[in-house]
Amino acid sequence: MKVKVGINGYGTIGKRVAYAVTKQDDMELIGVTKTKPDFEAYRAKELGIPVYAASNDFLPRFEKANFEVAGTLEDLLNEIDIIIDTTPGGMGEKNKTLYENVGVKAIFQGGEKANVAETSFVAQANYENAIRKNYVRVVSCNTTGLTRTLNAIKEYIEYVYAVMIRRAADPNDIKRGPINAIKPSVEVPSHHGPDVQTVIPINIETTAFVVPTTIMHVHSVMVELKKPLTKEDVIDIFENTTRVLLFEKKKGFDSTAQLIEFARDLHREWNNLYEIAVWKESINIKGNRLFYIQAVHQESDVVPENVDAIRAMFEMADKWESIKKTNKSLGILK
Amino acid sequence: MKVKVGINGYGTIGKRVAYAVTKQDDMELIGVTKTKPDFEAYRAKELGIPVYAASNDFLPRFEKANFEVAGTLEDLLNEIDIIIDTTPGGMGEKNKTLYENVGVKAIFQGGEKANVAETSFVAQANYENAIRKNYVRVVSCNTTGLTRTLNAIKEYIEYVYAVMIRRAADPNDIKRGPINAIKPSVEVPSHHGPDVQTVIPINIETTAFVVPTTIMHVHSVMVELKKPLTKEDVIDIFENTTRVLLFEKKKGFDSTAQLIEFARDLHREWNNLYEIAVWKESINIKGNRLFYIQAVHQESDVVPENVDAIRAMFEMADKWESIKKTNKSLGILK
Amino acid sequence: MKVKVGINGYGTIGKRVAYAVTKQDDMELIGVTKTKPDFEAYRAKELGIPVYAASNDFLPRFEKANFEVAGTLEDLLNEIDIIIDTTPGGMGEKNKTLYENVGVKAIFQGGEKANVAETSFVAQANYENAIRKNYVRVVSCNTTGLTRTLNAIKEYIEYVYAVMIRRAADPNDIKRGPINAIKPSVEVPSHHGPDVQTVIPINIETTAFVVPTTIMHVHSVMVELKKPLTKEDVIDIFENTTRVLLFEKKKGFDSTAQLIEFARDLHREWNNLYEIAVWKESINIKGNRLFYIQAVHQESDVVPENVDAIRAMFEMADKWESIKKTNKSLGILK
Amino acid sequence: MKVKVGINGYGTIGKRVAYAVTKQDDMELIGVTKTKPDFEAYRAKELGIPVYAASNDFLPRFEKANFEVAGTLEDLLNEIDIIIDTTPGGMGEKNKTLYENVGVKAIFQGGEKANVAETSFVAQANYENAIRKNYVRVVSCNTTGLTRTLNAIKEYIEYVYAVMIRRAADPNDIKRGPINAIKPSVEVPSHHGPDVQTVIPINIETTAFVVPTTIMHVHSVMVELKKPLTKEDVIDIFENTTRVLLFEKKKGFDSTAQLIEFARDLHREWNNLYEIAVWKESINIKGNRLFYIQAVHQESDVVPENVDAIRAMFEMADKWESIKKTNKSLGILK
Repeated sequence: MKVKVGINGYGTIGKRVAYAVTKQDDMELIGVTKTKPDFEAYRAKELGIPVYAASNDFLPRFEKANFEVAGTLEDLLNEIDIIIDTTPGGMGEKNKTLYENVGVKAIFQGGEKANVAETSFVAQANYENAIRKNYVRVVSCNTTGLTRTLNAIKEYIEYVYAVMIRRAADPNDIKRGPINAIKPSVEVPSHHGPDVQTVIPINIETTAFVVPTTIMHVHSVMVELKKPLTKEDVIDIFENTTRVLLFEKKKGFDSTAQLIEFARDLHREWNNLYEIAVWKESINIKGNRLFYIQAVHQESDVVPENVDAIRAMFEMADKWESIKKTNKSLGILK
Repeated sequence: MKVKVGINGYGTIGKRVAYAVTKQDDMELIGVTKTKPDFEAYRAKELGIPVYAASNDFLPRFEKANFEVAGTLEDLLNEIDIIIDTTPGGMGEKNKTLYENVGVKAIFQGGEKANVAETSFVAQANYENAIRKNYVRVVSCNTTGLTRTLNAIKEYIEYVYAVMIRRAADPNDIKRGPINAIKPSVEVPSHHGPDVQTVIPINIETTAFVVPTTIMHVHSVMVELKKPLTKEDVIDIFENTTRVLLFEKKKGFDSTAQLIEFARDLHREWNNLYEIAVWKESINIKGNRLFYIQAVHQESDVVPENVDAIRAMFEMADKWESIKKTNKSLGILK
Repeated sequence: MKVKVGINGYGTIGKRVAYAVTKQDDMELIGVTKTKPDFEAYRAKELGIPVYAASNDFLPRFEKANFEVAGTLEDLLNEIDIIIDTTPGGMGEKNKTLYENVGVKAIFQGGEKANVAETSFVAQANYENAIRKNYVRVVSCNTTGLTRTLNAIKEYIEYVYAVMIRRAADPNDIKRGPINAIKPSVEVPSHHGPDVQTVIPINIETTAFVVPTTIMHVHSVMVELKKPLTKEDVIDIFENTTRVLLFEKKKGFDSTAQLIEFARDLHREWNNLYEIAVWKESINIKGNRLFYIQAVHQESDVVPENVDAIRAMFEMADKWESIKKTNKSLGILK
Repeated sequence: MKVKVGINGYGTIGKRVAYAVTKQDDMELIGVTKTKPDFEAYRAKELGIPVYAASNDFLPRFEKANFEVAGTLEDLLNEIDIIIDTTPGGMGEKNKTLYENVGVKAIFQGGEKANVAETSFVAQANYENAIRKNYVRVVSCNTTGLTRTLNAIKEYIEYVYAVMIRRAADPNDIKRGPINAIKPSVEVPSHHGPDVQTVIPINIETTAFVVPTTIMHVHSVMVELKKPLTKEDVIDIFENTTRVLLFEKKKGFDSTAQLIEFARDLHREWNNLYEIAVWKESINIKGNRLFYIQAVHQESDVVPENVDAIRAMFEMADKWESIKKTNKSLGILK
């Protein structure tokens, strides 16, 4: 029997998770919600995905456009086992009451505070914590990215300092700037460090900056080691870490642009790069400090996490069984 | 028997044409050339495409990287019926001697001058002109875009004035600016108008500007009509024009960003938007003037043209037979 | 006796007009309003300019920051002869009642509808229309730019079609995008043509686009002539038109970036380029059509217009007397 | 008697240093060199600055444009006591032979290797080292920025790790990208750390990234302290450090855009922000680690350093006498 899944908020993350769910043989996509009948809504319909209004308030928009909806969020909730809440940050908390009332499980995203759920989640780091839980929070794209690589070396970590150079807006978001400036988060350290600690208990501090690009975040990571590691060790560890890929500048990976081009060359849907991209040449050890630089595709790296979280919450598979299944279904390289 | 095709220059256009060729049942991709063993070269190899060095001069680069090539361009030329020259603008003319010496047909791109070939080419406008020709030039992305829509209404055209707002660099080209400026071509009218005239004999003048974006060109088109047309007529004509699609702002197509998102939502390879995108609401008639705004995906709109040109040059199909075959193979919507 | 001037809204335009007023020997700057005590407010204070809260509602913000204000807008209105309303578009209309109640004259900006005032205004085109008026609207930066050059050749104009490539946000506005897209106004023709007609009665249609740059707008202008003109005539006319400057690409003016660099090299305050910049090489005649390309510094071109409008409204000088006085005081080159 | 100064390379840095020299009562600007008669050359002429061709090779360019030069670099060298070499990175080394032959002193910029000169130089850190020297290197904008703040706290420094988020191109450079990508220096640590060590002997490592902005660099600095410091101590130290200014986000300094706006509001020539801008709220201590974020105006922060270097090399003033004189002449706030 397949788990029946609904998506609340068919946008950048929602549509990718919906797609991923349809690729799983143990899940069934029952429907998605939209607040307006835009081209994403029409595309869902073309794909045969039932589209629900995100609430009664939005029905007039659909009626005005003669876009027939399958009902509203409440109707969808009655037909599913679990809802993936991919609404804008902060709304998930408000929606939770609805989910509790109907008694469906729910997965929230990283825009919510950690206490919205019973556990925060990155599959390869703490899959076990989500087993049989009703409410799980998949952490943000940046936190997922940091967690994937840091978890792989966590036994060596004394202290981490990571600087996050963030894309200002997603590719299809044309409202946000800046167009020509660098914007720091002046609260130092930033909230990203504590967010990693909701998944793995490491000593970490971060600072964050927004820059005028749309395609990927970049992290400059510095780790103070408590045990010796060589550069070759780290390369070896990352090469054996799922959802982490090494890229070489000498093959032309000069910037985030070529990382996205790599995903395009693979014909990945929406040029998704589910894997965290680490520049191989950037990995270096100086004394007891390890340095590396990684990039995060903010639109897609959390997608496999949502799929794995579903499996954990219904105890449908153990950790590595789920990760492998998800990876295979999405073409994740390792 | 399939036509044997080689690609000289496996870059932005070359890799897309190579892919398109592999989707045709009457063509066979024999090999592609590269000047260096970058990730595109490795990807070609993964796909089982033989990679040749673009000349002897580049062999040391491949040897240094232990990248085994299938030979050089000259070897490739000996195995094929036609070469698609997708080298940087101006190099095609220099390469032509090589092609002539071996006696292979050749298709050049819009970066070359018109006189490099026997005819310039946009399939729906002048397929017939390329029949049995040895040298054909597929015109530039911008000229292809203008020609597709203007050809559809050419009997109504007294005069066209088009302003071209051009993307400054392709997504994976990080070397070119500007980052924060608008750059006019001060030669007014620009060379784009005469280039359209190499395909269809209309009275057209253009001006051109470069702006800091990577994803699409946009054209503001004004047509002085010699015969009356209504807005509805134009919508009807464009709806019945192959490789032209109408997009509505009211469905959320606010900018070029959403057009690319549409292609991503379709899971088009490399988010190719082979079709010229016309904003439906922008189509308007005031007196004897028709206005419309269109966008051009500079990385892909010429790809189907290259495929059709091959068929014309070997007289493998008539015009509409070829266009339909190409459209179907690439998922072009109409 | 000097005219007592207040500025409602000390932002991008307001602070420049305030500065310009202080440079006039027949005007006195009494005070400016702010909605919050940001660095612009502190700078005003440093300069000895009295700062008023834009309304009672904003007082708590100033109190919280221990920023002493001179009063509120209502207090300022009681001390002045004229208010320059440089509030965000659409607010001027709401503010007008306040001005009427106190009986001060008011100048509005181009973000307001034309009917907010008795006349729309560009000094060199229709100074006379503002004489003794109580409410005048200085038109937008784009309309001012079009009017300056078109007014100079208006007797030759049969029809104008102008394409406006607009900067998306001002340099110090980091909230607005797009970061990587071109956004058309799909209403074609756009509202800019009718706006020019509020100043000069010419036949004009326009289309408009927003692009990711912050520094200047660019216009591609095409004019159908009713009387012959040569390229040299046009150059001569523009060389003799106030607040219009010709720039040559051959001297390195390749883009809007170098135009701003020119203003920086002049040590203009805020790199103001009050003059409309026409690329000399872009001026061309083909048959009965004149083409040219111009750029508009959106932060400053309307500043001298505000000063001249004050003089007209108090009949302090005739047209050319005022224009010359303003030009000299601001270092406008001609 | 005034020191006679020449500038080799009247570009972004050269024209600012030239301007600064004219503001000193103990220096005289004799002339500047250009490679072509662009608008910067015409501006120099307007200002009465003699313009020399950078070499004989460039004379034809000037002749063709009927731009009369005062001679060539060699002529200039014969009339001066010291040349400021502001040619593109790497050229200074080649030019040095010319300077040696004539026996003029020379100041090089940060694009040169340290060994081009007898000492690297940041006035407030090591003015004494340049006294009576013949060849001095003013370090790069980034190195100058790091040195100014780190020198102020150097006795507390155990180790520094700084991440540099660099502007990709200067405002008037429209040739360089990226337009939409983040580009890391994959050599980790980057060369910036060792460059600081050419001025002050601290333990420092850096990583560096290029992002699509033109206006300022930003540094995220983390310092491991060897002695306790409080946040208030650091604020106090920076408030008492010359050429360093504290900016508060709460006053609206949200990004680099507002820092430049601050300089524009001051009517600084070319919006120069000679001072390093530290965000006050970003200064924080966690355990033995100090964090702060600063921004660097790459076009101007090294300008006062060049002036001070001249004084040191001719022993015209002691350190603080020179710094104060330079600061006052340029309007540097403290």
